[in-house]
Amino acid sequence: MKILVVSAHPEPRSLNASLARFAVGHLRAAGHEVRESDLYAMKWKATVDADDFPADGGRLHVMDASERATLAAGLTPDVAAEQEKVLWSDAVILQFPVWWFAAPAILKGWIDRVFTAGFGYGPTLPPPYSGQQFAGRRALVSVTLGARETSFSDRGIHGELTDVLYPIQHGLFWFTGIAPLEPFAVYGADALPDDRFEEARRAYAARLDGLFTDEPVPFRTLVGGDYDHDMRLLPGVEEPGTSGLGLHVRPAG
Amino acid sequence: MKILVVSAHPEPRSLNASLARFAVGHLRAAGHEVRESDLYAMKWKATVDADDFPADGGRLHVMDASERATLAAGLTPDVAAEQEKVLWSDAVILQFPVWWFAAPAILKGWIDRVFTAGFGYGPTLPPPYSGQQFAGRRALVSVTLGARETSFSDRGIHGELTDVLYPIQHGLFWFTGIAPLEPFAVYGADALPDDRFEEARRAYAARLDGLFTDEPVPFRTLVGGDYDHDMRLLPGVEEPGTSGLGLHVRPAG
Repeated sequence: MKILVVSAHPEPRSLNASLARFAVGHLRAAGHEVRESDLYAMKWKATVDADDFPADGGRLHVMDASERATLAAGLTPDVAAEQEKVLWSDAVILQFPVWWFAAPAILKGWIDRVFTAGFGYGPTLPPPYSGQQFAGRRALVSVTLGARETSFSDRGIHGELTDVLYPIQHGLFWFTGIAPLEPFAVYGADALPDDRFEEARRAYAARLDGLFTDEPVPFRTLVGGDYDHDMRLLPGVEEPGTSGLGLHVRPAG
Repeated sequence: MKILVVSAHPEPRSLNASLARFAVGHLRAAGHEVRESDLYAMKWKATVDADDFPADGGRLHVMDASERATLAAGLTPDVAAEQEKVLWSDAVILQFPVWWFAAPAILKGWIDRVFTAGFGYGPTLPPPYSGQQFAGRRALVSVTLGARETSFSDRGIHGELTDVLYPIQHGLFWFTGIAPLEPFAVYGADALPDDRFEEARRAYAARLDGLFTDEPVPFRTLVGGDYDHDMRLLPGVEEPGTSGLGLHVRPAG
């Protein structure tokens, strides 16, 4: 299969860079084709601005300019190349350190600039959350965190990791029809002893081996009859006692 | 009072820029001191990299380098200036378009670069979520969204807005002791008719008038006895039927 590994750490000798290299090697050894977007090495431009839409002049309406450039094949070469990689892939892996409970700016800028109107969202595309647009693709978010695992557990003060990463898991991937797996996380990552690094690689290897066979997060679809015409979950569809972002995950069994 | 308005839109004639200008004018007319960080106008550097820590050489460990530079007053002038504004302020307003369910990369880069170890987090500071570090300050997140309000309501498919913005509301502000108000949002913002723009300005004015008097989101504190030593919410503290991120908000009454 074809896998795109997108990584976002400034230091090639970091844990994140090690995990990205490990994933690439492990996946190739298993017979997959792998392409990489090492955003720092690429000096990826993080910020959406008027330079992204060279054919547009005057007042910049980002969505409109983005859609015009996408439909007219007028995007900048760096963005067009990343879109081609996403379309080429059967799975996307994002490898990043969680900074302030989200992706580093350079990776947010990859999302902002690559998933243009007309490519990632907009009226010319299949409905969001329908599983259709980038159908059949999968995603695995692999992160490192300085905090302890308990603080990101179901009752942890930082919020459960799957909820904190909801803007990527559900907002980016599931919205565009890419089925996300549960995130893979290495906690206590600021100073990881060698034995815990080995343990992390073993755990990561198991997740990489399951990239195309593990069950994705069972998010509900907009076309599955669970939502009304205002995109609100219908009353009583959820398990009793469910609230918050968990409403949008189908109950097990 | 002293208010810092941070805004992040590339087009000075955008709705976001209009709302930022409106806030500045309205607050000044009410007698407040206001400073602005218009990130696009400032050409804010979004990406954390080795250039941020000029005194550091060799392998870049971001947290360690960040803490050393902060404690030694060795941060770059752009970052030091923004830290000074945060410390100067009694309230911080963030004005941005929600792109892919989060802040634009340039604003994420303001968070990543300004809230360094030793300033925003780290062992030299009071405990997070204690309300102590930037005690007495408030925050208001003001956003525009293309979607309809129902889709971000309590049962909306995108997730409730307060949950989607949790990494900023709770992860950045509350973590550092800044009390966030409920976000202010303008929906259907891709093409806002004049009458709805007037309505949005009136609604925003009311929120700005309440900046120092409205009740902040009643997030729980780490020092309030609700969490165990592993930073997990104690059993039975919540209202029955509460799950997800809502666990970390104290029940009303």
